[in-house]
Amino acid sequence: MKIAVLGTGIVGQTIALKLKSLGHDVMIGTRDVAKTLARTDKDGYGNPPFSEWYKQRSDIQLGNYKEAATHAELLFNCTAGTGAVAALWQAGEANLKGKILVDIANPLDFSQGMPPSLNPVNTDSLGETIQRTFPELKVVKTLNTMNCYLMVNPSLVPGDHNVFISGNDADAKTKAIQILKSFDWKENNVIDLGDISTARGTEQLLPIWIRLWGKLQTAMFNFHIVQAK
Amino acid sequence: MKIAVLGTGIVGQTIALKLKSLGHDVMIGTRDVAKTLARTDKDGYGNPPFSEWYKQRSDIQLGNYKEAATHAELLFNCTAGTGAVAALWQAGEANLKGKILVDIANPLDFSQGMPPSLNPVNTDSLGETIQRTFPELKVVKTLNTMNCYLMVNPSLVPGDHNVFISGNDADAKTKAIQILKSFDWKENNVIDLGDISTARGTEQLLPIWIRLWGKLQTAMFNFHIVQAK
Repeated sequence: MKIAVLGTGIVGQTIALKLKSLGHDVMIGTRDVAKTLARTDKDGYGNPPFSEWYKQRSDIQLGNYKEAATHAELLFNCTAGTGAVAALWQAGEANLKGKILVDIANPLDFSQGMPPSLNPVNTDSLGETIQRTFPELKVVKTLNTMNCYLMVNPSLVPGDHNVFISGNDADAKTKAIQILKSFDWKENNVIDLGDISTARGTEQLLPIWIRLWGKLQTAMFNFHIVQAK
Repeated sequence: MKIAVLGTGIVGQTIALKLKSLGHDVMIGTRDVAKTLARTDKDGYGNPPFSEWYKQRSDIQLGNYKEAATHAELLFNCTAGTGAVAALWQAGEANLKGKILVDIANPLDFSQGMPPSLNPVNTDSLGETIQRTFPELKVVKTLNTMNCYLMVNPSLVPGDHNVFISGNDADAKTKAIQILKSFDWKENNVIDLGDISTARGTEQLLPIWIRLWGKLQTAMFNFHIVQAK
């Protein structure tokens, strides 16, 4: 499938690499290709700059947001959540029309100090904001409740644990679940919470996720919903 | 131990009954004893009125918030979260001084429609609000992420699953953990997230909890944090 991965950070790199390894035709989208390739600083987590990673990945295309959206039937939103809507405007409404956006970003707001808060939150969510702003895009929120290496390799955490999914379009959710299964998620561990407003629930898992990361001293954990038989 | 349970709803009843069965000297606190006993309507979930339950429970004392706080060395906050601070003012600052409050309430706000939102949220929490308002009360947030029957009987959901704890006072958390253990929580399944600001994380689990309740058609489930070995 022709897929665009919006965002050049570690999440975008990890998703793009996995999709490429599965045989998809992948283009990474960024705001300004020349600037992205010129950056030599590590990211906030100490990862090397995109350009270094990209040297080894000439099999993955790179374009601006508009070129990536034009390329794709399906897009992954791996931007920093608070910049997602701006990135999608640059991609162009017409280039998004009727396509599926798998939204794995979280609207982490660092302006209120650490740990980050969320914006939007509570009576709104990033997933809903994107859906409302681009009504003809089919937004599916998923994978946003875990570390990116776990997203594409659930066996990094042993046993059963869950990935949530939210969205208004049943066919788009079915296609997103197919991708989750190709990432080795067991269908039984995918929990469809309902329409896109349920993204409020998964985005608001981030505050405890961040605290658990500090507490457990590892990002390699996940939520498992256990229920009475 | 002399314990006050603030709140006469199904959560307060369940906690009071469990504490009484463990041999504690329990007083339930309510705003107005006469009014509470006079109510004949079922609650929002279809449970019978407090007075009917209380007929069988003459071994549990009943008083107003002030009497309950005066009675107790340790208090459970089982009020509707948005009324918790008002209830504690009625209990009286002097009667709370130096005591432990196990805060199991959530600030569910029904004024924005269903499902409820949270108020406060994001850069604040109910746990922090109570701690800030009553600095000499030792607030421990715990048990607020599950159904009340599960709080006092974790084996209702098989296998391992977690209860979170947040608070500024280490001794108060140790005492709260002793109570959790008396409710049959395994110490390994208690996750101490840190200070009271981490209550933001557990209170913000409510939005997905409510959606999961709808999805799973049962409240008898819980979160288990699974991690790589």
